[in-house]
Amino acid sequence: MRYVYAVDIGGTFIKYSFFQEDGTLLEKWQRPTNPKHAVSPVLADIALVILDHMDAANLSKEQIVGIGMGIPGVVDASEQVLVAPNLDWHNVDVRTRLSGLVQIPVYLLNDANAAALGESVYGGGKGYASMVLMTLGTGVGGGVVLNGRVITGFGGAAGELGHLCVNEQETIPCNCGLYGCLEQYASATGIVNSYRTATNQGISGTLSLDQPITAKDVVEAYQAGDEAAKHALDRFGYYMGKACAMIACVISPEVVVLGGGVSAAGELLLPLVEQYYQQFAFSACRGTKFVLATLGNDAGMYGCAAHVLGHL
Amino acid sequence: MRYVYAVDIGGTFIKYSFFQEDGTLLEKWQRPTNPKHAVSPVLADIALVILDHMDAANLSKEQIVGIGMGIPGVVDASEQVLVAPNLDWHNVDVRTRLSGLVQIPVYLLNDANAAALGESVYGGGKGYASMVLMTLGTGVGGGVVLNGRVITGFGGAAGELGHLCVNEQETIPCNCGLYGCLEQYASATGIVNSYRTATNQGISGTLSLDQPITAKDVVEAYQAGDEAAKHALDRFGYYMGKACAMIACVISPEVVVLGGGVSAAGELLLPLVEQYYQQFAFSACRGTKFVLATLGNDAGMYGCAAHVLGHL
Repeated sequence: MRYVYAVDIGGTFIKYSFFQEDGTLLEKWQRPTNPKHAVSPVLADIALVILDHMDAANLSKEQIVGIGMGIPGVVDASEQVLVAPNLDWHNVDVRTRLSGLVQIPVYLLNDANAAALGESVYGGGKGYASMVLMTLGTGVGGGVVLNGRVITGFGGAAGELGHLCVNEQETIPCNCGLYGCLEQYASATGIVNSYRTATNQGISGTLSLDQPITAKDVVEAYQAGDEAAKHALDRFGYYMGKACAMIACVISPEVVVLGGGVSAAGELLLPLVEQYYQQFAFSACRGTKFVLATLGNDAGMYGCAAHVLGHL
Repeated sequence: MRYVYAVDIGGTFIKYSFFQEDGTLLEKWQRPTNPKHAVSPVLADIALVILDHMDAANLSKEQIVGIGMGIPGVVDASEQVLVAPNLDWHNVDVRTRLSGLVQIPVYLLNDANAAALGESVYGGGKGYASMVLMTLGTGVGGGVVLNGRVITGFGGAAGELGHLCVNEQETIPCNCGLYGCLEQYASATGIVNSYRTATNQGISGTLSLDQPITAKDVVEAYQAGDEAAKHALDRFGYYMGKACAMIACVISPEVVVLGGGVSAAGELLLPLVEQYYQQFAFSACRGTKFVLATLGNDAGMYGCAAHVLGHL
């Protein structure tokens, strides 16, 4: 049996996972990210953690297929880090540097793409030839996987699904500077904003807006029959359905997987998205299926492992 | 030297091309399509034409890499014809049937995808890792090529770029039944319609609308300073730029190639599309290049040849 390490670099913590080559997750743990964030100490820390783990488990280098790393930034098709803003990394050859330290092959991909690949190979998208992951959290991210391979796109910019323009009448700018991005309606923040907009328009709502509310509050209010929540989630479904119809015109995925924190309310949200998708989709694309992600926060780890194993 | 045949099936004519395996087009000709359109006589005709040509050129079966066929309909990932409306073909295994007749491997793809692959390998998209062809004619079609492979999508429905919704305020339906499709503004018909709309809105135009006008007339009027034509082509650029920004969020192509009849005015249209693309594109995608198709009506033939040679 051979093994794979997956490493997910965040600004605060680095998450590690240890997989069997059949994709079984054996172990996971995390360590604080070196607070300096500089490339050398961060990579030295990772090398130490992995070499220590191999020692403890009595593993030789030959038994490790590779290390898959998820990077919170832009990774190009040759697996170079172009930029990772939270770490202040620019044009870093992480592959060569880390593999030089551990003498094990290193493979890189963007963290959102890693999550997409993980859900495609081991999660909600398993068994489908083509899939799109929409990650609905504070923002909206995503990834496109065709025949088991992540589409990175020119400049590593494929899968920026949160910035599909779905509402050209929007007058409030998105964080990206554009107007009417999907993220403005389908993220957790977007759902709360839609709720506020609805009550401002005079639609009755039961949530007190004097204190901060969350997307979860809106979902619970919806279930209790709140009119403004109904409006906000209908708006969510409308723009999600519309965005998925746009995606379908380009690549016609066999399945769309909804992940991220917002998808915790997935059983409720999925029918809303599907209903509007059927309304907006081009006829030949209407067979696309919609399912929920199943790997939660481990999706990226599974994707890193799948990425390594894809090189076998 | 080995050779490839490309066969492009239309409702009225079948076009044949004969390529060297290095992609050089040696010969092309056409024959009327069997008026019955039924599968058996059409395939028997094609087999005869190819076997006759091989005889005349004194070629053995071993010298032919394969026959690439462009189908005006839906071809799935396993290269089966799901439906070809103009020929009234449904669920036909053209590959097995034609290769049975000629004892040469047969490869199939949709005709729009064939044109995209042709432009990608031999035309305007040559040298780019990822490209999108937008074919601007009576309608708007397209194709997506990533790393030399056409993306067919679920149900063969990828690359339906003419049906991206770019204007949710549209009240006139597209031929497909949806509203605000790119095709409604960027096809030849769409440009003429925009011209009519502009004059109806009181924008001055020099073209007489008592008789039929063409997109070419609108382009010529634009060059002569016609205000309504300026409006129509600005609208073309606006919606094309917007659609390309949507496509970029999904796959971030390195290059967008404009083809089809409308692109004859490409030198004039390209800057309009690029200007609006820069306005609408997500920041990471703004490096996408825009170029014109170079293979004209032969793009599909080149794509069929490339598809065969991709199996070498």
